[in-house]
Amino acid sequence: MSGPVNLADVARRAGVSPATASRALGDHPHVAVRTRERVWRAARELEYVVSPEASGLARGTTGRIAVVVPHLSRWWFGAALEGLADVLRAAGMDLLVYRLGDPAARRAFFDDLPARRRADAVVLLGFGVDGHERRRLERIGVGIVSAGVRTAAYPSVCIDERGAARQAVDHLLHLGHRRIGMIVTLDPELDPEQPEQRSAAYTDALLRAGYEVDPALVVEVAWGADGGAGAMGQLLGLADPPTAVFAHSDEVALGAVGTLRRAGLRVPGDVSVIGIDDHPLAAPADLSTVAQQAHEQGALAGRSVLAELAGDPVERVVTVPTRLVIRSSTAPPRAGRAELPGAG
Amino acid sequence: MSGPVNLADVARRAGVSPATASRALGDHPHVAVRTRERVWRAARELEYVVSPEASGLARGTTGRIAVVVPHLSRWWFGAALEGLADVLRAAGMDLLVYRLGDPAARRAFFDDLPARRRADAVVLLGFGVDGHERRRLERIGVGIVSAGVRTAAYPSVCIDERGAARQAVDHLLHLGHRRIGMIVTLDPELDPEQPEQRSAAYTDALLRAGYEVDPALVVEVAWGADGGAGAMGQLLGLADPPTAVFAHSDEVALGAVGTLRRAGLRVPGDVSVIGIDDHPLAAPADLSTVAQQAHEQGALAGRSVLAELAGDPVERVVTVPTRLVIRSSTAPPRAGRAELPGAG
Repeated sequence: MSGPVNLADVARRAGVSPATASRALGDHPHVAVRTRERVWRAARELEYVVSPEASGLARGTTGRIAVVVPHLSRWWFGAALEGLADVLRAAGMDLLVYRLGDPAARRAFFDDLPARRRADAVVLLGFGVDGHERRRLERIGVGIVSAGVRTAAYPSVCIDERGAARQAVDHLLHLGHRRIGMIVTLDPELDPEQPEQRSAAYTDALLRAGYEVDPALVVEVAWGADGGAGAMGQLLGLADPPTAVFAHSDEVALGAVGTLRRAGLRVPGDVSVIGIDDHPLAAPADLSTVAQQAHEQGALAGRSVLAELAGDPVERVVTVPTRLVIRSSTAPPRAGRAELPGAG
Repeated sequence: MSGPVNLADVARRAGVSPATASRALGDHPHVAVRTRERVWRAARELEYVVSPEASGLARGTTGRIAVVVPHLSRWWFGAALEGLADVLRAAGMDLLVYRLGDPAARRAFFDDLPARRRADAVVLLGFGVDGHERRRLERIGVGIVSAGVRTAAYPSVCIDERGAARQAVDHLLHLGHRRIGMIVTLDPELDPEQPEQRSAAYTDALLRAGYEVDPALVVEVAWGADGGAGAMGQLLGLADPPTAVFAHSDEVALGAVGTLRRAGLRVPGDVSVIGIDDHPLAAPADLSTVAQQAHEQGALAGRSVLAELAGDPVERVVTVPTRLVIRSSTAPPRAGRAELPGAG
């Protein structure tokens, strides 16, 4: 097929008249569901881009912003979504939420994207997109903003991942710890760059302080308190366990604290623990952490989107500062800590 | 004005032609933003209901479900929203999320509702509506489902609030506790019926066991870990403090545990604590609780909505079972507990 795909091509493939194809793509009433589905499938297969006129929607006229999220029940995502929702509500915009599911659902979502202009802009919340997904996003021709992850292709609101991890590890180093464990969390749905940046900062900080990195002290687990609990068990099983642990998130750190308590060890008396986030349950657990403002990141992403729609200049990278919060889960190592009970 | 309000009335009030009013209400492109706003304001003031023809949307043809939520960053709401989003995605429906804001924003939201048919159905997530709000919801003429709160006016997916609280209090009674404190959480944005039901179950359980209810043992606080921390401090200040505490939610219970730890008291050695929810961070904190399935409640609400749209029968009340989860924050009271350190 040569030349750009047009409505007639879609109609022919779907076996309907161009007028019916136009109504189906415009989401008009009185089009049978099955006909609509056939037309949309044809449009998708041909990678037909519904023009604003055909869909009855000019640029910026749906009044809706779409946000794509991998998770809704985790604190960071919920808080960032709340910040975004508040800014958009104040601007009178509606918010469409798409939760990515398993890999097949995720693929279907991005494959369906170009055919429908359902929103005036898209916010990617807390995950990175691959090359294929980026090409699909480009085809819808609306503004895109990334929140929580720095993505070169789009204006991004994020934290300094290396800086945040460095704040945590430097705190442990300043307290006098030398054997510092790290619990890395991996999530196949999220961009691996975030854990990579945090891990790189750990290595840098140790080397800069003149200590070597012992690979046995680095444990990779799935995200969540269970992952943290298991990782701490693994670290306690070492012949020479760490005197302090840096976990990539507070939920994971709290799982590690649970394992220490069950093992009869004291925090920070026997082992210091620090996380990242300042989750609302970090304070009652007295967990030291590096606070990041999830609500603020979502709100700033909302402002970037509104600026883009208004034709105002949009900052390419907005870095939201993080802050070391010292509570009582971190303290200097005890003298003679090699004799940790249960250490071998 | 007599007779139903029609499009000409709206046009006259807005000072535009009926054709322009129709295009503005239909969200057509090429209508100036200010004109659109003037027309919508007139429609709102006259309580004009946009007909499916005028708005270009027949019943069931937007392909969108609207969910209204008071919070997005709290666990229950995020998990329930995730369950709802997953069911709707599988059905190919889009999800519009409206977060209620302060009272003024909430009022504006419900006042705007009837004028726009933006979704085929509405899910109320975790809050109750008052009479005014119910009348506004009725005017949009779409199906409504309530999740997390039992609302007589709508099909509801919920837990047995009294039953859940009874499971928690009965567990403490069975362990031999007599002086059982309760931390009630109040949220002005949420339906007071939920805390009322949980409190009533506490009173019933104590009276049934033959104990009297000491009003000094019941503390009302704002939701969250801070509220729980403060409430526990208040209970510890009593001349005869409780040997066990039932908190209306896990986050509040974990705040109470933090206060006990800082006071040098042991859980459950000095005071037992139990919550409701089975929050993901209850397990690593070894908190006993009554588990409710938030994700499942959202998913079932999604199924009720889809059934209603398909014209299938919808159950009026779906009660999702709760389950007592005994961890190590609850144990029998110590002998001689009247001599609690710090008890005055």
